[in-house]
Amino acid sequence: MRVFNFSAGPAALPEEVLRQAADEMLDWHGSGMGVMEMSHRGPEFMQIHSEALLDLRELMQVPASHQILFLQGGGIGENAIVPLNLFGTKPRADFVITGSWSQKSQKEALKYGAAHIAATGRTEAGFTHSPARSEWKLSDDPAYVHLCTNETIDGVETFEIPDLGDIPLVADASSHILSRPMDIAKYGVLYGGAQKNIGMAGVTVVIVREDLLDRAMALCPSAFEWKTVAANNSMYNTPPTYAIYIAGLVFKWLKRQGGLTAIEARNIEKAQLLYDTIDASSFYVNKVERRARSRMNVPFFLADETRNDDFLAGAKARGLLQLKGHKSVGGMRASIYNAVPLEAVQALVEYMKEFEAKHA
Amino acid sequence: MRVFNFSAGPAALPEEVLRQAADEMLDWHGSGMGVMEMSHRGPEFMQIHSEALLDLRELMQVPASHQILFLQGGGIGENAIVPLNLFGTKPRADFVITGSWSQKSQKEALKYGAAHIAATGRTEAGFTHSPARSEWKLSDDPAYVHLCTNETIDGVETFEIPDLGDIPLVADASSHILSRPMDIAKYGVLYGGAQKNIGMAGVTVVIVREDLLDRAMALCPSAFEWKTVAANNSMYNTPPTYAIYIAGLVFKWLKRQGGLTAIEARNIEKAQLLYDTIDASSFYVNKVERRARSRMNVPFFLADETRNDDFLAGAKARGLLQLKGHKSVGGMRASIYNAVPLEAVQALVEYMKEFEAKHA
Repeated sequence: MRVFNFSAGPAALPEEVLRQAADEMLDWHGSGMGVMEMSHRGPEFMQIHSEALLDLRELMQVPASHQILFLQGGGIGENAIVPLNLFGTKPRADFVITGSWSQKSQKEALKYGAAHIAATGRTEAGFTHSPARSEWKLSDDPAYVHLCTNETIDGVETFEIPDLGDIPLVADASSHILSRPMDIAKYGVLYGGAQKNIGMAGVTVVIVREDLLDRAMALCPSAFEWKTVAANNSMYNTPPTYAIYIAGLVFKWLKRQGGLTAIEARNIEKAQLLYDTIDASSFYVNKVERRARSRMNVPFFLADETRNDDFLAGAKARGLLQLKGHKSVGGMRASIYNAVPLEAVQALVEYMKEFEAKHA
Repeated sequence: MRVFNFSAGPAALPEEVLRQAADEMLDWHGSGMGVMEMSHRGPEFMQIHSEALLDLRELMQVPASHQILFLQGGGIGENAIVPLNLFGTKPRADFVITGSWSQKSQKEALKYGAAHIAATGRTEAGFTHSPARSEWKLSDDPAYVHLCTNETIDGVETFEIPDLGDIPLVADASSHILSRPMDIAKYGVLYGGAQKNIGMAGVTVVIVREDLLDRAMALCPSAFEWKTVAANNSMYNTPPTYAIYIAGLVFKWLKRQGGLTAIEARNIEKAQLLYDTIDASSFYVNKVERRARSRMNVPFFLADETRNDDFLAGAKARGLLQLKGHKSVGGMRASIYNAVPLEAVQALVEYMKEFEAKHA
């Protein structure tokens, strides 16, 4: 029996994708080889690779001004890789802190230069606020402004993306990439680890505007230097071929679902159902301001936290898994990525109501 | 029909491993989740992860003085990650050049400090020689000596590993790790990308002596700083979970084969059969000195290179794939890693003899 998996990542994948991957494991399209076994330079994998890039470009409507790269190291890797690639001439950047992940990004950037905090969404209740552009205090001529557009741990999503003129905006979109259409032209760089909405852990998508490819520090490792990666079509070093294949299967699944506009409608429905359930009750609480509530990661707390273990045990007994909140904030968290079906959220809210009725 | 796959990497995997992975794709051991979907912090994946580490330690007889890390970025990533981790106090190292890969390692290290060439195996015929210790001209007090113990492109393997006393030896063993027992105590660091003998592309195994964990440069990215990775049991950032799972299945397959002593005997038999066929003929030639011939990667040339395309087309028609040599050296190359069965080599030499009989 398949469970309903609310993991924050690595996370649920579409069953269709997993079935196809299993079917093709020993023999991809009559090649006599599994995808894991293919040379990354051979025609079979080159086809997989280029289809994945084309499908992603189409899904996200990536403009011709931007390149799509496949790297390794995930979001935490990018925390260093971004300054290594953009601090070549101006070793300073501004950070908008909306939660735990942007905090980490700012701290790591300090290794490579100045990392000015332009705004913070921390309140007495924790990270509950996404500062609007009017609250950002930018420094003089930064190399870029960094923003984590969806904070996985804190459940804070930023929906309004300002125009910064000549200052490149760099977005960590790891946990909501592909959840809705985004205007890529607004970003200098947008990146995301795969293990939420893209596929399996082990590949990082980096979308970078071409004029930013020439700003690396001299000691940026070649395998992580965007310019080198771009010049080699993401094959400067052996790419994580199977992770790219799985991502490609997810992209095709997304296209069958109707693309990002259709998936956004489903994501809104799922998130609304869950937030409505929380808001209708005094038994559960979510502290994030409404305009910044994440559609992907929904943290919530039981008013009576002594019941946390009971809640989790009862959920597990029904096949509702991975609902424990991140250790740094406690409580519960339901991650409801693209591949989590509406039925999972329906089963969760039904359980929440029953648990409340029993214990309120 | 499965082909015989002589790819240099990503490369053939054991059928048993692929079958098990396919069987478990949607539901690992009754968990209701596939391995790709599991939180890396959950008990299911923690078990997979710790078993992989234990099995690898047992297979390679890794002493307690050394830690085993799982990183990302492959061998080319390590070309930067090694100096970033070892140049903290002494930004200089020595390189023994045995082929194309050690050349790349030396060049990348120049970004971070001095990279002295202590010896080279290049001859008029290309890289055909592995310099003995007596030929190494070490500099004064280097941070380490780097050696690529098996050169995938040139087919040069180093079997005699000298004792360097207090100078740490750093080995890129990407393309022959797990092919035979190695005395890990002789190495300060031994690393390898997974896509030859370990599993699928996307995870790098780094075995590092504990006293070397404290020598990183200040600007080493946290996700690639061995000390940080070690302190977090290779989970500082989200690890490439599925690649670790596949590696773990390969480790268990290797144990069922009888471990590294048994696999070495099979690898000797396979390599001997192929080299004997080459040496018995004037139609085929391998230029590497006999004591340094790789058991994993066997480059060979047709005396009449105008027949190269014919040779490859005929091989393909028999299901003998990926025999084209690396573009930098030309000719042919048969990579005969652990998962390539003796039957594949038998089929290859049979074809080589027939091709020779027809065209000689």
